[in-house]
Amino acid sequence: MTAAEGRGRGRPRDPETDTTILAAALELFVERGVEGTSIEQVAKRAGVGKLTLYRRWSSKEDLLAQAIEQWVRAEVTPSAADVYALTPRDIVERVLPAAAEMAASPGFRALVARIMGSAVSHPQLMAVYWRHYILPRRELAAAMLRRAQQDGTVAADADLDVLIDMMAGAVTYRVLQPDPPDATEMLRYLAAVYRQAGLYPPASDA
Amino acid sequence: MTAAEGRGRGRPRDPETDTTILAAALELFVERGVEGTSIEQVAKRAGVGKLTLYRRWSSKEDLLAQAIEQWVRAEVTPSAADVYALTPRDIVERVLPAAAEMAASPGFRALVARIMGSAVSHPQLMAVYWRHYILPRRELAAAMLRRAQQDGTVAADADLDVLIDMMAGAVTYRVLQPDPPDATEMLRYLAAVYRQAGLYPPASDA
Repeated sequence: MTAAEGRGRGRPRDPETDTTILAAALELFVERGVEGTSIEQVAKRAGVGKLTLYRRWSSKEDLLAQAIEQWVRAEVTPSAADVYALTPRDIVERVLPAAAEMAASPGFRALVARIMGSAVSHPQLMAVYWRHYILPRRELAAAMLRRAQQDGTVAADADLDVLIDMMAGAVTYRVLQPDPPDATEMLRYLAAVYRQAGLYPPASDA
Repeated sequence: MTAAEGRGRGRPRDPETDTTILAAALELFVERGVEGTSIEQVAKRAGVGKLTLYRRWSSKEDLLAQAIEQWVRAEVTPSAADVYALTPRDIVERVLPAAAEMAASPGFRALVARIMGSAVSHPQLMAVYWRHYILPRRELAAAMLRRAQQDGTVAADADLDVLIDMMAGAVTYRVLQPDPPDATEMLRYLAAVYRQAGLYPPASDA
């Protein structure tokens, strides 16, 4: 950090304080939604002064977007190196168990509901989340799908943006339905989604 | 209505009053979400006494579920007779323009966001909506997909529940993304979704 940056944004950041603040912000967002969460409440729950938050985040939406990003960072995603070195089938097998655990967790369901729920009333939150988190992952998914097109398991004329929406959309839609799946059922579900998309052909075809 | 029912639920319903109440409930739900909406506020906006509402709906969730149902009733869906008489391709062509108009409307986007957003915090609303509105439509979609399996455009071993989630999930996911499509783009998008699913093969294959 340069001195000018240091002056502009207050004292240098304390990573532990940031972690505490972001965890408190995520809790409140899941409990109350974006309408029911304020910078003041996050400061109170994190046990810090509200000026600390105002110095670090320019808006509630920016704070919540970063809180969501920190939570989903634990998600298992293939690296760009994997995507270009492995077959789509191998990548799917590698990520399936952890992806199923995450997608079946109550915390994931609650967070998806709140993010989708705020998309129209607070578009800035979705915009930040989309740019920082979703778009890079869509790039990797598109690379997998182009590889599968070369292998002939995805149609050469498939619209990849639409196909990515069908995969991601199915999971977000499924976890918000009544009677959501447990991790075992979610593993079967994700395998069926990837198979339907053409990313997870039966082993004999691979 | 029997005399006993009439006594149990107050005076016979006035359909116009019901329409006014349901419209007010939907407005408030879209503006403020389920947390921000109360029976009292709906009564005030509709210009009726709150006892009128308490006599007719046993909970806020029941009232909102019926308000949503009334709104989506205008949606163009194929009849059961059509589904069993026409080809999947003909059905898709018939519903596409109206479906695209609806899915691209700001009201639809806002409603989808609120319904998805309340799924975890207020599961009763999703449960009522699912049972009364979604499940019958999924039955029709499954019938179309079974027909397409016979025609060979959908794989015989496809998981139809997963495939229906991929179609419905893509649309709900797409309309909540930044830069949502207008009706023209949505028409192209829906055609691509149906094509990817195998319900809308190129005319030469039909």
